[in-house]
Amino acid sequence: MSKPLILVSNDDGITSPGIAKLVSLMKKLGEVIVVAPDSPQSGMGHAITVGDTLRLTENNIFKDIAAYECSGTPADCVKLAKHHLLKDQKPDLVVSGINHGSNTSISVLYSGTMSAAIEAAIEGTPAIGFSLCDYSHDADMSHVDEHILKIASETLKKGIPKGIALNVNIPPKQNQNIRGIKICRQANARWEEEFDQRVDPNGRKYFWMVGNFVNHDKGEDNDEWAIAQNYISLVPCQFDLTGHHAISILNDDWDL
Amino acid sequence: MSKPLILVSNDDGITSPGIAKLVSLMKKLGEVIVVAPDSPQSGMGHAITVGDTLRLTENNIFKDIAAYECSGTPADCVKLAKHHLLKDQKPDLVVSGINHGSNTSISVLYSGTMSAAIEAAIEGTPAIGFSLCDYSHDADMSHVDEHILKIASETLKKGIPKGIALNVNIPPKQNQNIRGIKICRQANARWEEEFDQRVDPNGRKYFWMVGNFVNHDKGEDNDEWAIAQNYISLVPCQFDLTGHHAISILNDDWDL
Repeated sequence: MSKPLILVSNDDGITSPGIAKLVSLMKKLGEVIVVAPDSPQSGMGHAITVGDTLRLTENNIFKDIAAYECSGTPADCVKLAKHHLLKDQKPDLVVSGINHGSNTSISVLYSGTMSAAIEAAIEGTPAIGFSLCDYSHDADMSHVDEHILKIASETLKKGIPKGIALNVNIPPKQNQNIRGIKICRQANARWEEEFDQRVDPNGRKYFWMVGNFVNHDKGEDNDEWAIAQNYISLVPCQFDLTGHHAISILNDDWDL
Repeated sequence: MSKPLILVSNDDGITSPGIAKLVSLMKKLGEVIVVAPDSPQSGMGHAITVGDTLRLTENNIFKDIAAYECSGTPADCVKLAKHHLLKDQKPDLVVSGINHGSNTSISVLYSGTMSAAIEAAIEGTPAIGFSLCDYSHDADMSHVDEHILKIASETLKKGIPKGIALNVNIPPKQNQNIRGIKICRQANARWEEEFDQRVDPNGRKYFWMVGNFVNHDKGEDNDEWAIAQNYISLVPCQFDLTGHHAISILNDDWDL
């Protein structure tokens, strides 16, 4: 049997330690190709490049692994990989990450990591975004291997339900071992922004956005809860945004 | 009773004809403030600016209306408006658009227009993204007024179900009048990309992404169907991406 073909991308850029870790793990499971942004794309959400050109350059950063850096967003990377580089060769799995930082709860909307996974899922490819809940560039990733291999292997074996990409968040390295993997819903939490106003050397105002994460969700079935309990959270994410429950409300209550 | 406060944004930029039309309509319903990107942000999805600074500059383009142009994304605009400019003054309605081009079906994921609306909805503000299914800069918008006013008025009167933002798409101007407004689900369609490879004057390759929209959805309850029938489509969009149906599948079938 031929080895499965695994496409790896991310949003922190092709030189980040997280993607190097993910490539090293995926090599154990199949044939790997990497297409990742040439610069950090954090917070890019599901952006794509329209009205501008894209560059794609071969890169030997992973030595024996075919790797390309792309001037665009994570979603662009997946599109270029599937429709330009691979063409008729369909990947068996698309993985994105390991993101340096959490993508739990509402952060999934802003996440470039997850946009790569969702882009693949839209085209029917099993896809997973992996994030480590530790923002530091040199985060300790020594505890992630067995869990990422297990989730990726299970995906290769069983597939993923139609219309779904997996959002996997991993607790930061702690003294205690990870307690397991919980299949969760997205926590009902959000970012409350503050703007730190400063003045540049030319006397013009500018702002830094400073986010404060606010979690009012008391449930024990959501991703924030799982991470706080030292579990890995796995949220099945859909890209059909229709709020079906609201259709009948609007049909009944609204006068259009 | 004081007039409702309406925040207007978009993704085509503050100088686009679409936002001028939307501002002129919202003036009839309330007190208007505009915060919109200083340059086109199409395809930005739910991107936010992290790791970089933001500019916000007053702009008198709408004369008697307070207006600001922002260096960031549509989601940044809403965040800056709510947490910096308005602070304790909560808008009663956030509208985004009128986008020059369709945001039906899967395009909602890539849409900067809808990201402004969804950003507002996350914070509990009734919000609507309006798009005209005509990509031209000088599109005929003479048929949109009564429909946009009706939907915005109804939203101000009745509110929007919790966890929802409205994605409204309007057919292009045709000889026949618009047949009405249909509350829809997101069509199950997607973009299939091709890459037009070229060579720059320095001999280096670059690409233009060329999208082909593919719709296999035969339903008569989705937004693509509505637009094709000359109805306005209104899709309630949620930002909880959890695919709840997949949680039990994964719990039953997967061995984690």
